[in-house]
Amino acid sequence: MPRYKITLEYDGGPFVGWQMQDNGPSVQGAVTDAIDAMCGERVQVIGSGRTDAGVHALGQVAHFDLSRDWRCDKIRDGLNHHLRPAPVAVLVAELVGDDFHARFDATERSYRYRIVNRRAALALDRGRAWLVHQPLDADAMHEGAQVLVGRHDFTTFRAAQCQAKSPVRTLDELTVSRYGEEIEIGARARSFLHHQIRSITGTLKKVGEGAWAPGDVAKVLEARDRAACGPVAPPEGLYFVRVGYGGSETPENS
Amino acid sequence: MPRYKITLEYDGGPFVGWQMQDNGPSVQGAVTDAIDAMCGERVQVIGSGRTDAGVHALGQVAHFDLSRDWRCDKIRDGLNHHLRPAPVAVLVAELVGDDFHARFDATERSYRYRIVNRRAALALDRGRAWLVHQPLDADAMHEGAQVLVGRHDFTTFRAAQCQAKSPVRTLDELTVSRYGEEIEIGARARSFLHHQIRSITGTLKKVGEGAWAPGDVAKVLEARDRAACGPVAPPEGLYFVRVGYGGSETPENS
Repeated sequence: MPRYKITLEYDGGPFVGWQMQDNGPSVQGAVTDAIDAMCGERVQVIGSGRTDAGVHALGQVAHFDLSRDWRCDKIRDGLNHHLRPAPVAVLVAELVGDDFHARFDATERSYRYRIVNRRAALALDRGRAWLVHQPLDADAMHEGAQVLVGRHDFTTFRAAQCQAKSPVRTLDELTVSRYGEEIEIGARARSFLHHQIRSITGTLKKVGEGAWAPGDVAKVLEARDRAACGPVAPPEGLYFVRVGYGGSETPENS
Repeated sequence: MPRYKITLEYDGGPFVGWQMQDNGPSVQGAVTDAIDAMCGERVQVIGSGRTDAGVHALGQVAHFDLSRDWRCDKIRDGLNHHLRPAPVAVLVAELVGDDFHARFDATERSYRYRIVNRRAALALDRGRAWLVHQPLDADAMHEGAQVLVGRHDFTTFRAAQCQAKSPVRTLDELTVSRYGEEIEIGARARSFLHHQIRSITGTLKKVGEGAWAPGDVAKVLEARDRAACGPVAPPEGLYFVRVGYGGSETPENS
């Protein structure tokens, strides 16, 4: 059975998240339905990772098997046709080996968190960024962020419902940059804990507004206590940007 | 009576356009209602220019008079409060002289047109850009665009319902740039004709897809005939970016 890898863009706003759930429409469900409508098969669509309700994707990756061969451009165009009007788009469809696994083979995941830092309400970016009124010092946020780069026990930045076996993760990159009234936080790692980036963002916001010093981030991390964390940032600012495959790093627990 | 100048961002999607009309909600109407709700006055809100249904703004400017003084930050925050849930935001409110006129004093208007050039449907940019499937040559588009820079009779690029007295306009800048799968057209002039940028964009798309050579744009312009124009590009890719005041250029007819 041929296996297909698809790269997806979606607006997380109308979904309960990536994963199929009983309480509303999911991205996984929309894609599964589109494959069914196009190919007449009810397949299992396996994503590289879950995204929460409201979290967007620019480059989520998933795989599934079909019982017969389809041209990859037909998969892409046909799924896009059947996905309408859901705000989910197949950017690329590729034929991959039947040992490819969207989740287990991923060696790198990149996320971006967008903050719009201004007094005025959001109009064009509503549901697409976190609006923070008080002025934030992005340089202080970046300085505080560097404490978190590397291999650490991220218990402080982990949701209570996180299912990962270990709270240890290696954060390869965490940057905070200002572009006019927008602040972008970029994060890259092999894998992340549930709510890790939104928890880190909430903590860095405390640094940005001056409530905490950049050096306080070390204390927050070392506390290994969820209560030490800043408030979790809302989902609508978070974008799942890219999944990397390849490389030969030792897998972490996940 | 104090006069206030406000700078506005809006998502044009849910509106019939800037101007109040009988057939649906307008941005001008939303702002007028918000001022009424906040200040208890039914004032006339005068914009720097109209935008069509679906056209967005990052920096529309308007003015209005109130019968008593308000602090500018109160105007901004109060209007933003009362504008909810409409996707309209007051970015800045300023007290100006009672001779300031948002439309007649404008010396420069800048627009951006966003094309996403890819096979896949739009998910995050739906309603925020024009999706063009066939590959476009942005360099050829830019070359063709340069023909239009300067003072010309833009009859070819003018809507039948355009109310301007003269079809002559001076286009100060028209650039086409590619950023990955996105193509941005930037246009700057003292004033524009109705549908001028969308008509130009439709023509440049013909050049980009190779149907017309860059040099054909001169023939299209010189035809002074609406029928010679490429199809008018859809409104959702157009953004009213900025209005400039000041400078001492001679006003054009408008």
